[in-house]
Amino acid sequence: MAVGFDARRFLRDRRDNRRHAPEDLRAFVHALVHGGIETYQVTAWLMAAYLNPLDDEETFVLTDAMMRSGTVIEFAPGELPGPTVDKHSTGGVGDKISLPLAHLVAACGACVPMISGRGLGHTGGTLDKLESIPGFDPRLPVAAFKAQTKRLGLAFGAQTKELAPADGTLYALRDVTATVETIPLIVASILSKKYASGTAAVVFDVKTGRGAFMRELAQSKALAERLIAVSRRMDRQAVALVTDMDQPLGRAVGNALEVVESIEVLQGGGPPDVRELTLALAAEMLVLAGLERDVAAARSRATRALDGGDALGKFRAVVEAQGGDPRVVDDPTRLPRAPRTVPMKAARPGFVTKIDAYAVGEAIVALGGGRRRAEDTVDPAVGIVFERKVGDRVAEGDLLGVLHSGPADPLDVAKALAGAIEIGDRETAAVPLVRDRFD
Amino acid sequence: MAVGFDARRFLRDRRDNRRHAPEDLRAFVHALVHGGIETYQVTAWLMAAYLNPLDDEETFVLTDAMMRSGTVIEFAPGELPGPTVDKHSTGGVGDKISLPLAHLVAACGACVPMISGRGLGHTGGTLDKLESIPGFDPRLPVAAFKAQTKRLGLAFGAQTKELAPADGTLYALRDVTATVETIPLIVASILSKKYASGTAAVVFDVKTGRGAFMRELAQSKALAERLIAVSRRMDRQAVALVTDMDQPLGRAVGNALEVVESIEVLQGGGPPDVRELTLALAAEMLVLAGLERDVAAARSRATRALDGGDALGKFRAVVEAQGGDPRVVDDPTRLPRAPRTVPMKAARPGFVTKIDAYAVGEAIVALGGGRRRAEDTVDPAVGIVFERKVGDRVAEGDLLGVLHSGPADPLDVAKALAGAIEIGDRETAAVPLVRDRFD
Repeated sequence: MAVGFDARRFLRDRRDNRRHAPEDLRAFVHALVHGGIETYQVTAWLMAAYLNPLDDEETFVLTDAMMRSGTVIEFAPGELPGPTVDKHSTGGVGDKISLPLAHLVAACGACVPMISGRGLGHTGGTLDKLESIPGFDPRLPVAAFKAQTKRLGLAFGAQTKELAPADGTLYALRDVTATVETIPLIVASILSKKYASGTAAVVFDVKTGRGAFMRELAQSKALAERLIAVSRRMDRQAVALVTDMDQPLGRAVGNALEVVESIEVLQGGGPPDVRELTLALAAEMLVLAGLERDVAAARSRATRALDGGDALGKFRAVVEAQGGDPRVVDDPTRLPRAPRTVPMKAARPGFVTKIDAYAVGEAIVALGGGRRRAEDTVDPAVGIVFERKVGDRVAEGDLLGVLHSGPADPLDVAKALAGAIEIGDRETAAVPLVRDRFD
Repeated sequence: MAVGFDARRFLRDRRDNRRHAPEDLRAFVHALVHGGIETYQVTAWLMAAYLNPLDDEETFVLTDAMMRSGTVIEFAPGELPGPTVDKHSTGGVGDKISLPLAHLVAACGACVPMISGRGLGHTGGTLDKLESIPGFDPRLPVAAFKAQTKRLGLAFGAQTKELAPADGTLYALRDVTATVETIPLIVASILSKKYASGTAAVVFDVKTGRGAFMRELAQSKALAERLIAVSRRMDRQAVALVTDMDQPLGRAVGNALEVVESIEVLQGGGPPDVRELTLALAAEMLVLAGLERDVAAARSRATRALDGGDALGKFRAVVEAQGGDPRVVDDPTRLPRAPRTVPMKAARPGFVTKIDAYAVGEAIVALGGGRRRAEDTVDPAVGIVFERKVGDRVAEGDLLGVLHSGPADPLDVAKALAGAIEIGDRETAAVPLVRDRFD
């Protein structure tokens, strides 16, 4: 690599759809991080890779090189009290599943070294949700992250420049060159970061629908398949569920409001879809970690841990360990609260036929609860709590939901939200929560 | 345009092969020259445009905007003593045709505002050839260029940053991102510069073969067709000849040596292929300029001007007008001369079956007579004069050509050249000089 990376030849190969040699891909990632290729050459390659996509083998080599471009957290055999397993969601609206799920799975004996990120655009991020808990620091340094994973079976860390720095560089350039939406580069981005966190197994929650990064079911399935194929090539255990993101997940959307809902789930309650997806993913994770032989047994174990209070106990312990105020569990008013609430009412009788997750996510951003750009700050208190979901019958004037807003007039947002909720004459069944499964 | 050019949307359009709106292409070129798009976005667009080529209408709009990105030389109606017409060659080895041709056509009453460039890689440039004439300044400023075109019917100017600056920016980026070889961008580059020089008509000499930019005949024909189509859309008169560049043109390759050969042609002599191509192109130019009704009559007129000395007289006048030493016409020893000559002899008897123009061009570069990079300087004296061309019979020990070299040992070059000349047992006819014609 020191003798020089021939960027033009590398570009010609991608341009003409010739398979990259492994050493060329490794030299490319090295040049990306240490110099040896110009930014304007990287972006030309990205466009070529968008139009002539990498195959699985190329994606594997790229992912592996990106993962190794920075710190790779490793746990020695026997260092942890249980097998490692993690979950990755491709992002959605109201997707707080990591919060109940990580604690539930850790309560069942697995170890979850969870690196999470901030929200961007219409989708939220686990890091923001955790930060809405007063005092909570979800950005443990590597040594503390490893130590807590060992002690509690669960730690939350943040994506930093130390982990897979090549991905940070590539992603920023993809964002400004219209080369984000291509499966091989998405796979490399997700897996390089995920497998740098030290987990041996991952369950992928690939969202599909209006609020998802991939709106079309076929595309979401294709992404799920490639995540599994490349994970396998990396000697990692992986399963993927393709799940609905046409309407928001659960009732709450907004950082602190989602923490409240997560606590409800950890208490054995919460909205049915959030509880269901938590249990479905937990069961997959326990099987993947080798703690249960089949999904049915794993689900029983997870259900017991959820309803018996073990998962909630793990939550208390982790919140306390990372500096947060554990009293929020019994007193959610200790979480940030918005100064105003605005009821949203049904303008006509009928059935809720659609709640547009994308429009809801954009409304949250408009309220200040999400980010347009990575450097924006978020208001943890604002959000929406829905009282009705798709399929529910409503009378005129019924409460559809409550907007939690800052001091500024949220009329525009309320109007946008009203447009996101459709009421029709005929009952429409919500699509199934889990659309497909890949292993 | 001031309200902001949306580079990402522009990139998505090209990526997804959606036709660019004319205003978007114009805004793109404006942003390229005045700011509003990042270099790394331009290169992503170039790769997208390579893989999803622009159609003729898009190419026309891009070309027009690139032409208008800088100074556009214009001649008012009646300002010149004759109609304007120019020639453009896609570049080759030993291609000195501009020198005899421009003077010949001007001697026949047309006005030739000729902007030329330097050689790069294995192909030579008219600017370098002219500069080998002691004192000659082929880089007239615009006012002097226009005045001389008016007075003598011919002036030589140089490509500068004032003419089509958008092309300079794009070309430099194409060169480092493997996006040079795509016909629509080649067409836009050629035509934007050519039509900024003020000519109303152009004859294109599209080279094909080993020494050409486009080696495959089909590709060369495709380029010729698109040059004509887009020229027509720009309301310019255009004809294209596709001509052979498998072996070098004429006998001399090297700047000063090619000037000597050009003078021989202007004196009514010279190698048959150089004389033939000069007359063929001159005939097309005279018809295109409206000075003759058909090619046969135009060819007769050009032949008379060549053999009668009018073209040579024009050459003397132009050399003198641009500061050059007109005595080179009668005494070529006034041109730069190489200190050493090395004969190349036939190693076996037979027929010359191939002279690899690309290898010859590379040998000239190795001698210092061409450029690897734009900033290199050239030695005007070095080069090769062939004594045999494809199809000629040779005996063992016959002189194939003479290498004119600098003081350094040219053995490696002589060896490379020997490899470029193939001698076989069977007589091979040279391919026809003019392979096709498009109008």
